Amino acid sequence: MVRAQGMRATIPVVEGALMTASDQTVSQLGEFGLIDALTDVLGTQDLLVDSAVLVGPGDDAAVVSMPNQRLVISTDSMIENVHFKRSWSSGVDVGVRAAAANLSDILAMGASPAALVVALGVPEDLPVSFALDIARGMKQEADRLGVAVVGGDVVAAPVIMITVTAIGSPTDRVIERSGAQVGDVVAITGRLGWAAAGLAVAMRGFSSPRVLVDAHRRPVIDYDIVRAGFAHARSLCDVSDGLIADAAHLAKASGVRIDISSGSLTVSDPLKDVGAALTEDPLNWVLTGGDDHAFLGTFPADQVPPGWNVIGAVSQGQGVGVDGADFLGLAGHTHFAGQ
Amino acid sequence: MVRAQGMRATIPVVEGALMTASDQTVSQLGEFGLIDALTDVLGTQDLLVDSAVLVGPGDDAAVVSMPNQRLVISTDSMIENVHFKRSWSSGVDVGVRAAAANLSDILAMGASPAALVVALGVPEDLPVSFALDIARGMKQEADRLGVAVVGGDVVAAPVIMITVTAIGSPTDRVIERSGAQVGDVVAITGRLGWAAAGLAVAMRGFSSPRVLVDAHRRPVIDYDIVRAGFAHARSLCDVSDGLIADAAHLAKASGVRIDISSGSLTVSDPLKDVGAALTEDPLNWVLTGGDDHAFLGTFPADQVPPGWNVIGAVSQGQGVGVDGADFLGLAGHTHFAGQ
Repeated sequence: MVRAQGMRATIPVVEGALMTASDQTVSQLGEFGLIDALTDVLGTQDLLVDSAVLVGPGDDAAVVSMPNQRLVISTDSMIENVHFKRSWSSGVDVGVRAAAANLSDILAMGASPAALVVALGVPEDLPVSFALDIARGMKQEADRLGVAVVGGDVVAAPVIMITVTAIGSPTDRVIERSGAQVGDVVAITGRLGWAAAGLAVAMRGFSSPRVLVDAHRRPVIDYDIVRAGFAHARSLCDVSDGLIADAAHLAKASGVRIDISSGSLTVSDPLKDVGAALTEDPLNWVLTGGDDHAFLGTFPADQVPPGWNVIGAVSQGQGVGVDGADFLGLAGHTHFAGQ
Repeated sequence: MVRAQGMRATIPVVEGALMTASDQTVSQLGEFGLIDALTDVLGTQDLLVDSAVLVGPGDDAAVVSMPNQRLVISTDSMIENVHFKRSWSSGVDVGVRAAAANLSDILAMGASPAALVVALGVPEDLPVSFALDIARGMKQEADRLGVAVVGGDVVAAPVIMITVTAIGSPTDRVIERSGAQVGDVVAITGRLGWAAAGLAVAMRGFSSPRVLVDAHRRPVIDYDIVRAGFAHARSLCDVSDGLIADAAHLAKASGVRIDISSGSLTVSDPLKDVGAALTEDPLNWVLTGGDDHAFLGTFPADQVPPGWNVIGAVSQGQGVGVDGADFLGLAGHTHFAGQ
């Protein structure tokens, strides 16, 4: 075996975790050394105490005990220089965001996340510390929901590539995008446009307003408020492509029209300030920006849960309107240039 | 919405699938167009006929019905120019291999694969036909086990990046690497060294012996023979890092020593021919090559299933020996240079 144990500087730290010399590259540490260090950060040694995880990392696959026979599964990738840049985001930021995106997808089905697996592609010259910080960020966000990272894969890649797959169990019923009914109100929870405005700021080389750049670096999700929507939501999704784009997905899946009142949308002061500075209408970020991982749902009018803000209504028809007119602006994040 | 429908040439073909002009790039087709075309190839329209798949692609997550409350999960990435090259492998080859790697990991736990999800990173200039061929290859291999691709993600990336996550259900008991017992025999099924020899050939710019280059392009796995091992295997893994490396993982997990008799290993004529031409000992490919997805198990001596070949024995001690001596050669595939 080619475990690079001899190349690893092991220093006990207070949490009992191994600390690896931060100036090492992944090439110097080696594949098995990196896997050991990552699983250490992810708390593998504690996993089998959790009775839901029957076999953790180290075997061909992980084994997880699920509370019922239905399973919700989601997968999502983040690519360096497409979704984040190392010059803007820390490893912890990237890990938080990767975990949050997948945890959100499970919650958006009205389900409880049970476990994550992660596939990590790393350049040979990546500092080990950055890879471990990604693991720390993932664990930090997953811990908020009591979810473990139960397995993974590490491969060489030209840029950092993180693919997280989340599995979960429906708590009661599955809440699909197709459940919106005419007469429902449309409500959201979470911030809209902050990450997009932060990206616009960062792309111009600025690091302030810090609150917006931070919003691009990692989403801030109040999972309790999201879950408070499970009882009465008729349809639900997370806003990852932008409010208009995701409302359009939901409207199409449900065979209804969604009308949004722009006056009900919060355009916070930092967005107004940056909009003025960049001569852009900040409402466009609110309507089209993804990556904040807000949640969009439809509810019976008298059953909107606390923390959710009504922004529109469901009617017969199709498509999405803003203030009564079909929205013709740029609709959400797309990954490829030629469209 | 920015669906690039107007840019897509849609031609009905015999299978009822959409055919996209093969000279388009993913950038020309657009993200949503590509997702539509991929889910079409993957047979999403048929998914909900399969009662095990409750919600397929198009929502935040897929919902799958599992036959029991334990779940096996595995994830695995393949990166262009690390694991394959477009000049050597077709899209179908790459898709078959990506699916096979994960299906193998589920089988290596003694479990039945239930569903796959795929995250696909694609360069903007990638021909759409190549991306669809990857999907065709995945579906082709998954169909062999009656498994559906239930969801996925498509992102822009500098090279092709495929991360497949497989979930499955233990059929009877989970077969871990840690179950080997002193007195067991060690047996394998499947080819060893073929993919490694094929890679050696391809790296020198040759395309023959074709049978070896094909073995690098995609593994050939007899899933029925693998499953015939479930009833009596005490420990089981697939050989992805190489026979010696994976035997070492298994020996360590079980707290035993594994001795292998090299005379019991098949060194086929194509390997001998290439070894002679490249002045390399073909046994090294057999002992250290991954990617054929052979399976390695330990069994009670009188319960070796048909199609499995005994190559060694389990004894007290640690490590792996070949012909009675500790193996000191190159032990298996590692992803990073510096070890």
